[in-house]
Amino acid sequence: MTKLWQKGYSLNEKVERYEAAQNSALDARLVRHDVWGSLAHAVMLHKIGVLSEQEHQTLHAALCTVLELDAEKQFQILPSDEDVHTSIENFLSARTGDAGKKIHTARSRNDQVLVDMRLYGKEQLHQVSTRLFALTSTLLAFAERYQDVPLPGYTHMQRAMLSSVGLWAASFAESLLDDEQLLASVYALNDQSPLGSAAGYGVPLPIDRQLVADTLGFARVQNNVIYAQNSRGKTEAAVVQVLSQIMIDLSKLAQDVLLYTTVEYGFLRIPQELCTGSSIMPQKRNLGVMELVRARTQTMLALQQQILGIVSGLPSGFNMDYQETKGPFFAALDLVQESLDICELVMSHIEVDAERALAACTFELFAADQAYEMVTEGMPFRDAYRIVGKKVTAQLDSKVPFPVESQEQLVARLHARNHLGGAGNLNLGQAQERLAQAHTSWETRAQAFKQAIQTLVGPTHTAILEIE
Amino acid sequence: MTKLWQKGYSLNEKVERYEAAQNSALDARLVRHDVWGSLAHAVMLHKIGVLSEQEHQTLHAALCTVLELDAEKQFQILPSDEDVHTSIENFLSARTGDAGKKIHTARSRNDQVLVDMRLYGKEQLHQVSTRLFALTSTLLAFAERYQDVPLPGYTHMQRAMLSSVGLWAASFAESLLDDEQLLASVYALNDQSPLGSAAGYGVPLPIDRQLVADTLGFARVQNNVIYAQNSRGKTEAAVVQVLSQIMIDLSKLAQDVLLYTTVEYGFLRIPQELCTGSSIMPQKRNLGVMELVRARTQTMLALQQQILGIVSGLPSGFNMDYQETKGPFFAALDLVQESLDICELVMSHIEVDAERALAACTFELFAADQAYEMVTEGMPFRDAYRIVGKKVTAQLDSKVPFPVESQEQLVARLHARNHLGGAGNLNLGQAQERLAQAHTSWETRAQAFKQAIQTLVGPTHTAILEIE
Amino acid sequence: MTKLWQKGYSLNEKVERYEAAQNSALDARLVRHDVWGSLAHAVMLHKIGVLSEQEHQTLHAALCTVLELDAEKQFQILPSDEDVHTSIENFLSARTGDAGKKIHTARSRNDQVLVDMRLYGKEQLHQVSTRLFALTSTLLAFAERYQDVPLPGYTHMQRAMLSSVGLWAASFAESLLDDEQLLASVYALNDQSPLGSAAGYGVPLPIDRQLVADTLGFARVQNNVIYAQNSRGKTEAAVVQVLSQIMIDLSKLAQDVLLYTTVEYGFLRIPQELCTGSSIMPQKRNLGVMELVRARTQTMLALQQQILGIVSGLPSGFNMDYQETKGPFFAALDLVQESLDICELVMSHIEVDAERALAACTFELFAADQAYEMVTEGMPFRDAYRIVGKKVTAQLDSKVPFPVESQEQLVARLHARNHLGGAGNLNLGQAQERLAQAHTSWETRAQAFKQAIQTLVGPTHTAILEIE
Amino acid sequence: MTKLWQKGYSLNEKVERYEAAQNSALDARLVRHDVWGSLAHAVMLHKIGVLSEQEHQTLHAALCTVLELDAEKQFQILPSDEDVHTSIENFLSARTGDAGKKIHTARSRNDQVLVDMRLYGKEQLHQVSTRLFALTSTLLAFAERYQDVPLPGYTHMQRAMLSSVGLWAASFAESLLDDEQLLASVYALNDQSPLGSAAGYGVPLPIDRQLVADTLGFARVQNNVIYAQNSRGKTEAAVVQVLSQIMIDLSKLAQDVLLYTTVEYGFLRIPQELCTGSSIMPQKRNLGVMELVRARTQTMLALQQQILGIVSGLPSGFNMDYQETKGPFFAALDLVQESLDICELVMSHIEVDAERALAACTFELFAADQAYEMVTEGMPFRDAYRIVGKKVTAQLDSKVPFPVESQEQLVARLHARNHLGGAGNLNLGQAQERLAQAHTSWETRAQAFKQAIQTLVGPTHTAILEIE
Repeated sequence: MTKLWQKGYSLNEKVERYEAAQNSALDARLVRHDVWGSLAHAVMLHKIGVLSEQEHQTLHAALCTVLELDAEKQFQILPSDEDVHTSIENFLSARTGDAGKKIHTARSRNDQVLVDMRLYGKEQLHQVSTRLFALTSTLLAFAERYQDVPLPGYTHMQRAMLSSVGLWAASFAESLLDDEQLLASVYALNDQSPLGSAAGYGVPLPIDRQLVADTLGFARVQNNVIYAQNSRGKTEAAVVQVLSQIMIDLSKLAQDVLLYTTVEYGFLRIPQELCTGSSIMPQKRNLGVMELVRARTQTMLALQQQILGIVSGLPSGFNMDYQETKGPFFAALDLVQESLDICELVMSHIEVDAERALAACTFELFAADQAYEMVTEGMPFRDAYRIVGKKVTAQLDSKVPFPVESQEQLVARLHARNHLGGAGNLNLGQAQERLAQAHTSWETRAQAFKQAIQTLVGPTHTAILEIE
Repeated sequence: MTKLWQKGYSLNEKVERYEAAQNSALDARLVRHDVWGSLAHAVMLHKIGVLSEQEHQTLHAALCTVLELDAEKQFQILPSDEDVHTSIENFLSARTGDAGKKIHTARSRNDQVLVDMRLYGKEQLHQVSTRLFALTSTLLAFAERYQDVPLPGYTHMQRAMLSSVGLWAASFAESLLDDEQLLASVYALNDQSPLGSAAGYGVPLPIDRQLVADTLGFARVQNNVIYAQNSRGKTEAAVVQVLSQIMIDLSKLAQDVLLYTTVEYGFLRIPQELCTGSSIMPQKRNLGVMELVRARTQTMLALQQQILGIVSGLPSGFNMDYQETKGPFFAALDLVQESLDICELVMSHIEVDAERALAACTFELFAADQAYEMVTEGMPFRDAYRIVGKKVTAQLDSKVPFPVESQEQLVARLHARNHLGGAGNLNLGQAQERLAQAHTSWETRAQAFKQAIQTLVGPTHTAILEIE
Repeated sequence: MTKLWQKGYSLNEKVERYEAAQNSALDARLVRHDVWGSLAHAVMLHKIGVLSEQEHQTLHAALCTVLELDAEKQFQILPSDEDVHTSIENFLSARTGDAGKKIHTARSRNDQVLVDMRLYGKEQLHQVSTRLFALTSTLLAFAERYQDVPLPGYTHMQRAMLSSVGLWAASFAESLLDDEQLLASVYALNDQSPLGSAAGYGVPLPIDRQLVADTLGFARVQNNVIYAQNSRGKTEAAVVQVLSQIMIDLSKLAQDVLLYTTVEYGFLRIPQELCTGSSIMPQKRNLGVMELVRARTQTMLALQQQILGIVSGLPSGFNMDYQETKGPFFAALDLVQESLDICELVMSHIEVDAERALAACTFELFAADQAYEMVTEGMPFRDAYRIVGKKVTAQLDSKVPFPVESQEQLVARLHARNHLGGAGNLNLGQAQERLAQAHTSWETRAQAFKQAIQTLVGPTHTAILEIE
Repeated sequence: MTKLWQKGYSLNEKVERYEAAQNSALDARLVRHDVWGSLAHAVMLHKIGVLSEQEHQTLHAALCTVLELDAEKQFQILPSDEDVHTSIENFLSARTGDAGKKIHTARSRNDQVLVDMRLYGKEQLHQVSTRLFALTSTLLAFAERYQDVPLPGYTHMQRAMLSSVGLWAASFAESLLDDEQLLASVYALNDQSPLGSAAGYGVPLPIDRQLVADTLGFARVQNNVIYAQNSRGKTEAAVVQVLSQIMIDLSKLAQDVLLYTTVEYGFLRIPQELCTGSSIMPQKRNLGVMELVRARTQTMLALQQQILGIVSGLPSGFNMDYQETKGPFFAALDLVQESLDICELVMSHIEVDAERALAACTFELFAADQAYEMVTEGMPFRDAYRIVGKKVTAQLDSKVPFPVESQEQLVARLHARNHLGGAGNLNLGQAQERLAQAHTSWETRAQAFKQAIQTLVGPTHTAILEIE
């Protein structure tokens, strides 16, 4: 097909290849979002008289055909088409003649891709939230189940004070719940309609940007047309920054699980169905997925750096550099979802070896407890600390094995940590309530979004929205 | 002074030096926050009976003495003290004897530093918001003043379509207003009290974490004690991620200003008081500060990467690695404030060369307008585009200079872009209202924070809160 | 096919998917390298008696069949195979029975993938050098052609002193020649044979690592077996660090070209065959490829960060995390080659608009020259500087247009800068000689490598080495 | 003092502060290097007749006075001076009148700072190499001492195959030796004289750049004057990239040491003089320095990213952005030296708990050995692997504790790994020889550099070169 700007010369092939790169592959994800944008744009062009009723209906039908072809993976974007916008306009022109040639009135590919990314972002953020809630829920159930299993708490990777399996698992759930708040905040940032910004400077036509925004279910119009363009990549980066926060949690979870499943720690056991083996060592059971979560957290940080690096220092207005933010944005959204899924899988299959956990709760974990007992009897803490310090150090150096307290004693110690958020007072109900509320908020937003798209597409077509 | 954990051996000096590094210098910023934390902790210890009324009063007074010394820059943290917490505890013990030795009951330096960072973060975020509002306000005034000055709009660094100086300036204001929403969201994340998490595993004492949180003016308790520790660095990173968003805006502003003040563009003029010269070239007037804003945006991205890199993949519980997140967090907060200030300074002194801006609004900016005229007469856009394309290309190749339209014509064209957010409809009122509302929200939070600290410190002492 | 470590249970599908990710697609590039490694390993196993003469011949033939299938893109790696190593071992076992089951004696996939990456790296670095030389050569020819075309030299993006088009172009050539030295240095780092490190701890068998290294054309054995494993990713990062250096050059070239081809500067012109257009603005000719070079430099920096982030802080021994370094390594090698190519294309098609360059050589460029004239007459430079400074400032403020010197005058000024490396003494011969010598060194290495592989594969098969 | 370019107006104070930032503090390190550059420049100016014999001597003496003041920390750089170059020129002008006002003839601060950074870089790289050799030497001695102490080798953080303490320690030594080769390569890159590039476009004066380069002991002149400027930051980044490679090694060493000193592993013991304690837990002995090495590796990666981010995409010619590369360059050089030192300290004090290491060499480490025994009897490896796999899996699942082999048996197994680089053939002699050769090369370069500077400064003054 021809490029939209074709002017009677052939683009150098190397240039075409360097510019297209993976663009057609990436754009294959955006067919339906581009169609939705065009459907809403057509509604508006019809309203302001650029499209006749007939033309509007023809275009609507042709756009729905694209949706159907796409649903069957039959809509193709050729590298020579440059991008999804060109492919669809070419398709419309071929199908509908003049109507198709009118669809690009008052818009630019610059604002089309912006709206596509926003719609894609909304869709994907809903998916991310669903997976984040699934993992949180699994962690909270895990925490509840194991709230009375003692575990050494570590600082500096050395045994420190008494902890519990429940306290450990719930810590990740609370972290994810806080991440959700950041996620909601970037969702709102992303929930603005850029359409009408055209090439970044608007158009001398009486377009109705609010109508388009409402039709697509956006919360608001992104007002200033230069800002709309300048936010390309920047909005994506804001999303990826929050995804990085989520991955940081998962990397910590992964590192803990990797340590706790070593022969040396042995607090957790993984069913072999989740492990892979070695080509040389017959005995190996490796929890590769957790190593990959750890590694891919670095990948996420690199994707964040990539997008921010690309957009920083660019002059105002569209620059081709922005095209390069699409790949890392998609990659980041995929990565966080797969990683949340895999962590949920691991956490719902992992087993606790309570015996080894108990055995590891050795006496030195209670050095501070001893000092606190003296405190209760009136001794200033720092004095008590010093007395206990000498005693415990001598004991550690003597290397005589120390008796471990009984399970009952240890559980009693757990229960004594009964202040807010302590091992004896996990306050799981609060977390569960936060989870339920967050879930409802996202569900409400998802329904509104789906409703808008379904209305736009019309009753006879499926919206094919990737929101569960 | 002695280290809190001193056990009768001398720490190797190289180790001491490697660990202390810039820590004492950095901690010098945290004296008042550490005192506030200790004041609130003492209130709680008194309530649960660890401190007598007398001890509490003695400690309160001694802590206020630290505040006063600090206000006069007389409170010193020695490298051999390790940190601000040690220095203050040593001071209290020296001054008040047993009372001082009791202050560390039921807490750890791990949660002290957490609370210090949170309080420091709150204070600084208020400062950031103030500066962000100042720049936004200046930009909006600038936009209003120059809303009818035509300017070429660029894409791909090439002249594209008609823009205006007002449209350009307002785009940054709107971007900053969106940044403010992210800032409010990380403010809320940071507004949690970690106190009571102790070394990360709580304490077997009946402490009242809610009381401490309320006393310090925190919005809530950070519940799970492991999560409190694990959020070290992570929260700081979330803040710095938003500061990066702000710097991205400033880098774009800087790059535009650098371009527009070249001899070649010449749309803007900078008073020489803001410029520096060359040691070799007598004629030079360099706008170094804008180059530095551009460069320091990269510094901000590196600080973000540094914190995230440090915390990712660490096992649960405190790790000394976290200490390294303090420096970049402080650096990032300083950097964004200085950069907002400098941009405000530049934008409030910059002059527009309307003549050169007009002269640059050459005919090719209106190629799309020509096509739109044909569209108005019924021609499909894509056909009109191709016809105009041929004409304009021929004209450009002929290299005959083209007459520039008159100022009136250009302004009329600006006014014709009267859809939402177009050059003829900047909708500055909306931005101003958003600014006013955001300002009020931050002011309300600032008052509550200041009130809590003042109440805690007591009427006879100044809170020395760095919030204007 | 079955996994090598299959033990009678089914791997969870999500785990399989998360682990395989793009691994099969990436490994498709490594078929021939893996075969070469196996061919050399078989030579050694035969020598130490693990393989009989017959088995060796059978394996050699079967491996050559894989080479042929791969050359025709007929050798497939299924996700269920995990990786290229498994696919090939499965193929060999199916084809040759017991011989195939013996090929994995005394090795691990851990050292196979290491050797594959090293061989792939060698091959690709040869390609990189070829492209780097092509661009350098083009730049030097360009510099020679335009050495007498005056151009303003900029500092702080402001006109500073007289420069020339030749001086400008040659600066990039010299930078690339210095990059070549770093490239040679990482080539040497990469040119070590890891085979025999097995899973990272060697094997209790009398293997001959030197023989394998020699057979594959490696410069040396990577001695310590743990180090061999620990260098995974680290070596790749060292390569990518140098590729980043190259991209930094290209990004600067791109930024200059983007500026110099604006209407405002106009020193360079690009044929439209290298430009793309706009879907909305009929007049646009955008040099998108240079914007992409600028953006992809950030991508390169992110790839570097990704690999280094992944490997840093990992404990000794193979960790699955290393798998994640393959993708960014390949991406970086592709990216630098495509970018060198595209810059070569641009620089061999770009035209100089000498007229506009001349017109831009305005009087203020010569302020320092004026001071130097006074210096020649005995005045201290700093005094002369101040006198000229006042005069020029007044002139600039008067805004009266200044006469530009004639071409002859300007060229004479260029020639007067006749010290080493000045505009009047580019010293292109030195650069050309460095280029020739570097070219010869790489050619020598390439021949040795090709020779070793050809000898290993045998006369009847083509080595299919991607080195020109 | 006045700025060099002072033109009768006052620079805005905020601008002055934003530009100076930490510049004066950083420049305090460069006094002697700046003096050396000026001494060499004066030699050249004298040779070409700009300075009389008398003026030259006066300047030489005054510059030596600066050296002496600096040695006594008495030479001050005020923020209002902008930088070290201004301070010294002001000092010279005040002391020597016209001679001082002539020193800046034919140069710019742009090439002064370049030469300062190069000289500083050379000096520091010598220091880095010294420390790298010290650690390597300690590691090799450690490896020799413990070469027969068995240790489990890990993959995927799980017990894999038999290793030894010696093999482990030697792996780091070899990695550092490879890093040294990269270090030598960036030393050569840095060893070019930029002087004479002036503001980046040379000067219309017959300067002798080769003389200056020779006088300062540089290996060559950096020819093209634009390239000289454009290499600012880029050269620094190349150095920091290699320092990152070193830190990657140290981070791995640190992570291993942290794991091996946990109660769970217990293979290594650290004297308490290297450990710090906890303010709350009396029993704690934390190896904080190793945690900091791990964290500061991330800091190094961020510094690398910072420099590369700053320089990428800048247009040719000096930009103020380059100033921002000074801080991270200094920080990186400091960091790597302190970290090498601290690792040397730890490795020379660490103790091996051979008993626990032996006890951890459990049966599953020898599963592959069992398969190899069958291989020796003629069974194909893959068949042997499967048979052993079933047996070992059953054994692992039975959870009956397995007898550990005797020390003699384990050592015999170590010795059987007698191929190149295996536990039974560490080949330490080769590493020691590489170390000796590298040491000699650096020593030779150091002598040449010191000799040049001493000759330049003259016999009556000390060169105060920071090279041991």
